[in-house]
Order: sequence, then structure tokens, then C-alpha cells
Amino acid sequence: MKIVEQVLKGDKRAAGKLISMIEDDDAGATEALAAIYPHTGKAHVVGFTGPPGVGKSSLINRLIREFRVRDRKVGVVAVDPTSPFTGGAVLGDRIRMSDTGTDPGVFIRSMATRGHSGGLALATFDAVKVLDALGIDLIFVETVGAGQSEIDIASRAHTTVVVQMPQSGDAVQALKAGILEIGDIYVVNKTDLGGADSMASNLDFMLEERQGWRPPVVQTSALEGKGIKELADAINKHYRYLKGGGGWRRRESDRARKELYESMKRLLAEAYSDETEGVAFEEVVGAIVVRKTDPRSAAKTLLRDLKLPK
Amino acid sequence: MKIVEQVLKGDKRAAGKLISMIEDDDAGATEALAAIYPHTGKAHVVGFTGPPGVGKSSLINRLIREFRVRDRKVGVVAVDPTSPFTGGAVLGDRIRMSDTGTDPGVFIRSMATRGHSGGLALATFDAVKVLDALGIDLIFVETVGAGQSEIDIASRAHTTVVVQMPQSGDAVQALKAGILEIGDIYVVNKTDLGGADSMASNLDFMLEERQGWRPPVVQTSALEGKGIKELADAINKHYRYLKGGGGWRRRESDRARKELYESMKRLLAEAYSDETEGVAFEEVVGAIVVRKTDPRSAAKTLLRDLKLPK
Repeated sequence: MKIVEQVLKGDKRAAGKLISMIEDDDAGATEALAAIYPHTGKAHVVGFTGPPGVGKSSLINRLIREFRVRDRKVGVVAVDPTSPFTGGAVLGDRIRMSDTGTDPGVFIRSMATRGHSGGLALATFDAVKVLDALGIDLIFVETVGAGQSEIDIASRAHTTVVVQMPQSGDAVQALKAGILEIGDIYVVNKTDLGGADSMASNLDFMLEERQGWRPPVVQTSALEGKGIKELADAINKHYRYLKGGGGWRRRESDRARKELYESMKRLLAEAYSDETEGVAFEEVVGAIVVRKTDPRSAAKTLLRDLKLPK
Repeated sequence: MKIVEQVLKGDKRAAGKLISMIEDDDAGATEALAAIYPHTGKAHVVGFTGPPGVGKSSLINRLIREFRVRDRKVGVVAVDPTSPFTGGAVLGDRIRMSDTGTDPGVFIRSMATRGHSGGLALATFDAVKVLDALGIDLIFVETVGAGQSEIDIASRAHTTVVVQMPQSGDAVQALKAGILEIGDIYVVNKTDLGGADSMASNLDFMLEERQGWRPPVVQTSALEGKGIKELADAINKHYRYLKGGGGWRRRESDRARKELYESMKRLLAEAYSDETEGVAFEEVVGAIVVRKTDPRSAAKTLLRDLKLPK
């Protein structure tokens, strides 16, 4: 496929087009993704999560510049999994206007994936694969908030950065939200607001070493450009830790396992979509409603008679 | 199965045991659920959602008493889908201690379903089926918060009640959270705090008629027992609307469709669990990690070679 060749040669426009195809659930995207897959696995993927308003976008914009100084090609995939009712992709416009937009070593893309049949996480990491095949060294995955689906996405990265701010509540609240278990690096952003020291030491007190890595707490002010070098160093240090100790392989396996299940789920959705076996599927739904069969027995029948899409 | 006969005879202890089996992913639960399924579909299922602290539990306790006066058998399934990291089921203890606990016409149960292989929604509605088969007329499904997964659960009910309180933010925030699209009945609780009138009229202004039903806004004070009769009347009115206009069948179909997909997903998880084909599955994961194959191609192979569990 031409688009695959173009992406592998580093053509950013082709990469953008392929990501649009992924968003649109285009049949060609599946084929292209299979073709680029052998050329992926080199990029370091860093996920960012934290409540809305803590300054993740500003932080990422600062990091992009820092890593460009260090001569690394940087990509951003911004994800906006808001309510299925209200839609999303507010984020994209904001980030697209950032001052790094014209640099050829930077690729920024927001995902608008309402109703993607493979789920938001799968679509996001399909976009990550495109950037990886494009030759990007470092890919930031940015989520808008810290809901369950966003935490799920951010924690599929090799390195998960959890961003907080001094005002965002005391340490006990952080504990409640379950974020203490998912971060490889913690950031207290907006140190300019004050109170960052106590928040950082509270966080630091609660964090524990896991598999030879003790998550550092970095204080930053994206507004004033403070702490950005330290955060970039922490990201690089975690990369070396992963590559040195086998953590890389474990995280790649975790993601592969999840993507395998999601792909199976997606194949099922395709096999029983409106265009193909839709009628039979709805007949089965009707049989469940009138209690002729139960959901599990019906599911077995559907799996047994499954005709896989090409 | 003995437990099935007992549940169908109205044995509450047997129902409790069967729900525990569902929580534990017990193999016997699957068989029992298939056996009770033909005896379900009679109960009116009412889902409650809204931010933590708006008083959903108190409201439900008041409603239980109101519907007991009206001689209806009432059940509650309380769901606590908190972070996968911190667990849940705080709710259960609270609700179990309610003053309706000893009434034979009331069945209250909280779900603790960390890691249920079919997902929290499937487990919840499996419990609902048990209560339905037990002969309960009216089943309340209570979620702790208003996150995406909780909204998903509440909106699978026949009737979805969205609970707010005057202090929980202005109407624009309600709009943002996407709750205006999901409720069949809106409640402004804690009228004792003041400001309920303006919240209620704001809500009322934004709500639109959908398929012949205009969601009413009911003001209540669970603390003082005010507005409970009106809420119970609204719930009954919605039931008559659903039964009269075909909405019942549509909602049953929606749920059947979702449960069918979830059951397929669950069957896949079982077929490729550690105990059975675990090794082959992990081999495939390894092949993905080293880029010998891609997730979608691997998923096709696994689906093709699928050995369905009994």
C-alpha cells in the first residue's frame, strides 16, 4: 500500500491521513496497520493523566521543546474520551495551535473517536503505532481527565506520568482515586500557586518502590518553564530502567494482551454488524427479549457460527 | 438445580447465595442463570445515578417504605464500581443496616465485583435477574457516583432516575456531564438546603420530550420524607408509559444486545483463561511483542481456533 510506504519514509501528511482512517473505522486502516506493525516497537510511549485543569497540555508543550533541544523527534496523541453524549475533541484545537506546530520533528494529533468499534484505547494505540512507524522517538499520550478510561489509556504507555496540582486536594484524595498505583513519575505542576512542597512531600511519603523503581515526584511550573528539565530527565531515566530490567517487555506484553482481546471484540462487532449478519443478530436479540434463549447460550451460538471478516 | 427451584419459590437466602456465586464467577452461577432466565422479565427495573453525596441511598430507603405501603415487593442492587485499585463495597454495609432490613418483602444486596470477567454491568444485571426470578416487583439499581460506567449501568434499567442536589453545581455543569440525555425522571433532593426551586426550573427548562415522554423534575427531601410519594408516582407513571408505548420492548432489546456482546467477550476470556488455553494465548502475546504477528491477525487466529467452554 502506498500510504504504508509513505509513512515508513517519514511522511507526516500520510501519517495524518492514516490516523484519520483509523478514526473513521476505514477498512483500509486495518490493512495498513498490519503492514506497519513489524516496523513499530521502537518509540518510547509516555502517557499523561490527571484531573482537568492541572496543565497537562502546557506541560507537554514545554516538554516537546525540551526534547527537541535534545534532538529527539516528538509526537503527541491527545485523547478526549468525554461522555458519549456530548462528544469531545476540544483539546485538539487547543494543542494544534501550540507554538511547536511548524517544527518538522514534531507531530501533534488529537483523536476524535466517538463510536470507534474497537474502543478508544485501541484507536489511540493504533495512532501511536503510526507515529512509531513514522520514526518518532518519543510519543506523549495525553488524556483530558483522570476517569477510569483515561487512566486505562495512560497506563498502557511504557511510562505513565500522573500530573497533580497543589490545589487539587490533599493526599488522601489522591489515594482514593487510585492514582498512587499507576504512576511511574508524579508531577506537582503549578508550583507558582504555592503549596507544592507539602503536596509533593505528601505524595512522596505515600509512594512505594515497585519492581525496582521508586516513582519520583517532580515539581514543575509549566507557566514559568520551571522543572521541565528535571521531568525530561526523569522520563529518560525511567526509559533506561525499563530497557535495563525487563520492564519494557512486560509492559509490551500487557498491552499486546489487551489489544488482542480488543481486536477479538472488534472482529465480533464487525462480523455481526448491520451490513453483514445484522438481521440474524437482531433475531437473536429478539429471542433473548422473549426469553426463548438466554444471553450466554445465544453468545455461544453466535461464536460457534462466526464468519470472520477478511 | 436445587438453588434455582428455591429462588423460583421466593427463597431469599437462596437468592443471596446465587448472587454470591455470580460475584465469585462460580461456574454453577452460569447454569443457574440460564435456568432462571425464562422466569425473568416481569420486574420493573429502576436505575439511580448522580454524584456521591446527593442522598441516593436515603432516597431509596424512603422509596422502599413508600412502595411497601403500596404492597409492592422491592429489591435493591447497590453497585460500587470504584477504582480497580482501591476496591469498593462501602455502600453495601451502609444500606444493609437500613430500617427495612427485616421486612420479608424487601431484598437489599450490594455487589462487590472486582475483576468479574463479564464486567460490572453484566454482573449487576445478572443479580437483577435473580431478584426478578425471586418475584420482586420493583428493583432499584443504585450506583455510588455518576462516572461513565455508573451512568452505563443506571441507563440499562427500564427507568433511569438522575438525582441532583441544589449545591451540586449549576445547570450548565449538569449539561456537561451528559446527564440530560439519560434520565427518565430527575430528582432535586435535599430541598431542605434551599435553592432547589431554581435548580429544578433550570433543569426543567433544558429537558426535552423524547419519544413521547417528557422527563419530570421532582423535588424531594429524603431527610424530611418530602416529595417521596410524588417520586413514586412518577416511577409508576413511567412504567405505564413504557408498557403502553412499546418503550419497554426497546429497552429490553437494548439490554439484550449489550448482554449478548458481553457474554461473547466473557466466553472468549474463559476460553483463553490461564487454566485452559493460557499457554497458547501467551505464546500469541509473545509473537505480537516481537512483531511476528499483529494483534488483529492474531485475534483472527484465536477466534478461528476457538474451543468454546461448556
